[in-house]
Amino acid sequence: MKEIRVGIIGFGTVGQGLAKAMLEQQQRLLKKTGTTFTLATVADIALTSLPEEFSGVTLTQDANDIFTDPAIDIVVELIGGMEPAKSFMLKAIENKKHVVTANKALLSVHGKEIFEAAAKNNVEVGFEASVGGGIPVIKALKEGLVANKINFIKGIMNGTANYILSQMTDHGTAFKDVLKEAQELGYAEADPTYDVEGIDTAHKLAILMTIAYGLHVHLDDITVEGISSIEPVDIEFAKQFGCRIKLLAISRNLGEHVEARVHPTMVPEDHMLATVNGAFNGIQFQGDTVGDVLLYGQGAGMMPTGSAVAADVVDIGRNIVNGSVNRVPALSYITEHITAPVITPMEQLSCPYYFRITALDQPGVLAMITGIFGKHGISIESMMQQTRDTNEPVYIVFRTHLATEGDVEKAIAEIDALEVCAGPTVKIRLLIAE
Amino acid sequence: MKEIRVGIIGFGTVGQGLAKAMLEQQQRLLKKTGTTFTLATVADIALTSLPEEFSGVTLTQDANDIFTDPAIDIVVELIGGMEPAKSFMLKAIENKKHVVTANKALLSVHGKEIFEAAAKNNVEVGFEASVGGGIPVIKALKEGLVANKINFIKGIMNGTANYILSQMTDHGTAFKDVLKEAQELGYAEADPTYDVEGIDTAHKLAILMTIAYGLHVHLDDITVEGISSIEPVDIEFAKQFGCRIKLLAISRNLGEHVEARVHPTMVPEDHMLATVNGAFNGIQFQGDTVGDVLLYGQGAGMMPTGSAVAADVVDIGRNIVNGSVNRVPALSYITEHITAPVITPMEQLSCPYYFRITALDQPGVLAMITGIFGKHGISIESMMQQTRDTNEPVYIVFRTHLATEGDVEKAIAEIDALEVCAGPTVKIRLLIAE
Repeated sequence: MKEIRVGIIGFGTVGQGLAKAMLEQQQRLLKKTGTTFTLATVADIALTSLPEEFSGVTLTQDANDIFTDPAIDIVVELIGGMEPAKSFMLKAIENKKHVVTANKALLSVHGKEIFEAAAKNNVEVGFEASVGGGIPVIKALKEGLVANKINFIKGIMNGTANYILSQMTDHGTAFKDVLKEAQELGYAEADPTYDVEGIDTAHKLAILMTIAYGLHVHLDDITVEGISSIEPVDIEFAKQFGCRIKLLAISRNLGEHVEARVHPTMVPEDHMLATVNGAFNGIQFQGDTVGDVLLYGQGAGMMPTGSAVAADVVDIGRNIVNGSVNRVPALSYITEHITAPVITPMEQLSCPYYFRITALDQPGVLAMITGIFGKHGISIESMMQQTRDTNEPVYIVFRTHLATEGDVEKAIAEIDALEVCAGPTVKIRLLIAE
Repeated sequence: MKEIRVGIIGFGTVGQGLAKAMLEQQQRLLKKTGTTFTLATVADIALTSLPEEFSGVTLTQDANDIFTDPAIDIVVELIGGMEPAKSFMLKAIENKKHVVTANKALLSVHGKEIFEAAAKNNVEVGFEASVGGGIPVIKALKEGLVANKINFIKGIMNGTANYILSQMTDHGTAFKDVLKEAQELGYAEADPTYDVEGIDTAHKLAILMTIAYGLHVHLDDITVEGISSIEPVDIEFAKQFGCRIKLLAISRNLGEHVEARVHPTMVPEDHMLATVNGAFNGIQFQGDTVGDVLLYGQGAGMMPTGSAVAADVVDIGRNIVNGSVNRVPALSYITEHITAPVITPMEQLSCPYYFRITALDQPGVLAMITGIFGKHGISIESMMQQTRDTNEPVYIVFRTHLATEGDVEKAIAEIDALEVCAGPTVKIRLLIAE
């Protein structure tokens, strides 16, 4: 009987999800693969016993027990963060273990080193669970869309941020109130920085860009803005423009250079991404052969993420059994064809914009503001003015045609310096229709 | 240098799309696989020359030239229909060629024979393009969701029918007018029966059920109703209930038996499937581990379908090069674990229903109708009555809670036999919230 033996490092939410999935699906996987997938060992520094259902599984507090066990084929790293996760991954690889991880933070920073070590040791690195939770987005990109030049990646890749924006949209609640509620419900972490400031989304975009384009994209290559400054009034204006505000990861492949950005984005309400609500993720690719493909599902959670990790374990297991290790290169392109990226400078970004300007309601103000836009070549598509009590500043809201970020920055600086402006201008980029 | 040589039978729209994709993507595929994928031969009974861009490709009118060419590794059948497609597939398989096809009609009727022949000859059968056009739905189901019991399949799998329903919804146009327009635009075929009567969708559902459940599902197992009887008034009432009417393929896995049905369905407008419009497809799976996953994209067309066929060619090519043929069983489950399905009898189907009853506007009519519903245990969730000119029959519209098809059929027969009923009752099933 063929058997693949798995060791898990880190028995938190996802580790337990994987263990549960492996137990529950073992018979089904046997019927699909002819191979028994066995959870052999769990290493967790904080555990002294495993739940009864895992009675046949060895528990250790020392991850080295997994690396040095010759009977273990695949090591699954699920502790997250940089260290000791990175050292563990490298040790496992040096010990000729195949590795599977959901650690997007690690891969988006130290991916190059890890993938090179894996190539040197002829082992596989599975990372389906690092992007989009249970959605098989990595496999779709590497295999399903193999015969495509990817021209556009756009996606909602963080369920916490999307949940918060959805709640703000549905109930008109302020960001900090929804965040507090989300924390109480366990949907947001005590320190929500990675989720709400777009960093987690940037980790994922770096990984997707790397395999989509064959470029070693690093977290630092990505311009990141979060959602903590989004106000209910902007969500309301967005609705009036027929849009929803979503935290999107966006990358256009412009040939000579590639965009790499994460920021709140106004999405037309008839766009599929506008209908991705709550804690769900939606990730869209545009390929030159296939056109637009979108994948939707739960981007996090114990069992969905467990499903993705298990799929990697099975994928690698099939290759071990069939002697076809690294049949699909880890990063889609063969290592020697992966190059350094040239990232589009943000000031060269071209998209439509939304501006909310806070100004005194005086004659001539509009002429001053539109004059500044005109001077910088920014063409207005539509405008709305909110009326308020007398003598209070009003919101003047603009939606532009395609404009360039550099011009926009200059125009905003000039507008905000006007004496009639009573607060900083809010700028939100629109999803380009393409 | 590693090379995989491909022969195409049938150089219609998809055949040309594949040839174009193989040419355009050849360098990219080399960088991803280390293998050159070459289009060696095209067989088409109606062609005497190929476009200039394919100058290196051999053209024949005899498919046997492909089967008997020892240098050809993979045969792609793209002529469609039953014969000679079936004979060609089997001949290719007997000649130890791997085969790829987009022919859902063939697979949903003769799949068992073809897959058994392939297993006997140890060759692969790729059929990604048979469902969802360019969307990598087969790979997602077989590999990405491998560690899942699939509990629910629901999808919009025919772009023509979805285009027609979208146009009817947006413009209030009658079915036959939209169909005529779609035919003029080339979106619908001269004989649109397969598309609008749900047969094409049923082909695809049979294939998805087979690989999702490990059951040999045949086209004849599926209950099929098309969209040709849908009237604008039903689309309008659906809107008032907050729903869109879509032609859905639906299968719930109920353990002892599985549902298998294709019919117009009222979908809540906040459901992702309600937002799949125009010629696009959306296919949703619910797995016990992953929860809901939806894949969206172009379900037909020259290049999208070419993308899916090319992905199969590359997948099989990787297995040839790595000596790992049939590393993933063609039907997801290993042949000996695939069993005959037990299909839920339609009279046992349980879902909410929409009824449009045409009745005379007389006292007591409503009591008679609701009395019949009550007698058959059908519980009403809401009701609307359309007012009309005096003395004309009116529409009385009901939306029910969960009811059973058998009870519904009996109730409708009794209602339609009432003297006050002026036309047959229209019944549309609602998508069950699950």
